[in-house]
Amino acid sequence: MRFDVITLFPEMIIDYCSQSIIKRAIESSVIYLNTVNPRDFTLDKHKKVDDTPYGGGAGMVLMAQPYVDAYESIEKFENTKTIMLTPQGQPLNETKVKELSQYDQLIMLCGHYEGFDERIRDIIQPEEISLGDFVLTGGELPALCVIDSVSRKIDGTLGKIESAEEDSFANGLLEYPHYTKPREYRGLKVPEVLLNGNHAEIEKFRYEQQIERTKSRRPDLYERFVKSHEVSEE
Amino acid sequence: MRFDVITLFPEMIIDYCSQSIIKRAIESSVIYLNTVNPRDFTLDKHKKVDDTPYGGGAGMVLMAQPYVDAYESIEKFENTKTIMLTPQGQPLNETKVKELSQYDQLIMLCGHYEGFDERIRDIIQPEEISLGDFVLTGGELPALCVIDSVSRKIDGTLGKIESAEEDSFANGLLEYPHYTKPREYRGLKVPEVLLNGNHAEIEKFRYEQQIERTKSRRPDLYERFVKSHEVSEE
Repeated sequence: MRFDVITLFPEMIIDYCSQSIIKRAIESSVIYLNTVNPRDFTLDKHKKVDDTPYGGGAGMVLMAQPYVDAYESIEKFENTKTIMLTPQGQPLNETKVKELSQYDQLIMLCGHYEGFDERIRDIIQPEEISLGDFVLTGGELPALCVIDSVSRKIDGTLGKIESAEEDSFANGLLEYPHYTKPREYRGLKVPEVLLNGNHAEIEKFRYEQQIERTKSRRPDLYERFVKSHEVSEE
Repeated sequence: MRFDVITLFPEMIIDYCSQSIIKRAIESSVIYLNTVNPRDFTLDKHKKVDDTPYGGGAGMVLMAQPYVDAYESIEKFENTKTIMLTPQGQPLNETKVKELSQYDQLIMLCGHYEGFDERIRDIIQPEEISLGDFVLTGGELPALCVIDSVSRKIDGTLGKIESAEEDSFANGLLEYPHYTKPREYRGLKVPEVLLNGNHAEIEKFRYEQQIERTKSRRPDLYERFVKSHEVSEE
């Protein structure tokens, strides 16, 4: 998988990807990371990438030309997808992450300040993705979330594939509680069932915990889970 | 606002916060950032922070002792809040961001690998916050999203306060399209209404665009917007 990130702050992307699991995936050539800075595509000597909005208002607007030229400079694979990270997009979720992991290349446009000139959307026609209903300074953190979550789905990124498959949402439910050594910490004991080696009982306990936790914390997810079960049992 | 981040990867937090708007906010003492590494609180010579899960399964579980001790080492302000970044939490949104910006201190627990030993939750009793229904390698990107979005709400972080108030979701709707120079780019023209200087017409155009965009892209948000208007008009 190749990630091309169009950003005014390439260091934000490079720094995060120089650590932990993403670093290892890059070193082992499972993923490839490239950043492109629209500032390098400006045509005036001040390297201006934004200007005041037509119609007035606070903040600055990112100009079309440097972004479109930066985008067009990127070599496109056959199986490629272009994403714009904005609060106007569809919220990222596990289904979308899986879908994105099927591409060979993801090109990501990160905004900053007030927003993109609308003509960037008109020309590039990216799919818009949002992290959720809150506002960030720029698209860099959302782009890193896409890189991180998509990379996890690619064979060779995680140490053990099973680890990703047992994560939250893998079966539509939140995770069960985890316990590790010691058996007792500050008077709090590991549930007995996890210590007795009866795998059927352990599985039952964990599944019940998933159901209970999802029901109480995320009734919306639980409802969806029940519905999808009704459908698959028909 | 003081942010204390408990993380095995302090560089991920520090690197991002050394750039752009967050960097300026730290330099001007509007926000203060501190990281605490649970690895510095381990009691064995190998500095072990995780171990295999009781009951079996893939992945590793973060041990209670290093995290609880790291948490307890942090000086607490009076008006403080502790957050755990996990997919089991309530999804972050603009209402939650505003609420969090009212505290003087936010302490954040970032997980990694398989998850936290449940007794970390039992003892610290943090509020759990999620970025959305997708899985990341760790809690560092969600913590950065909290730092970034909350910082934007604090006076002195952004150049102009108005800029944050005109953002997406500020009135419950998605943003209207933005345009800046030139008037025509690759045959695409700025809408005439934005050029005529009639502010009432410009406002009307932008509001209609917000309604239209929210309706088509995020019917769920639009429905909530309509409902909140019905209530406030009663």
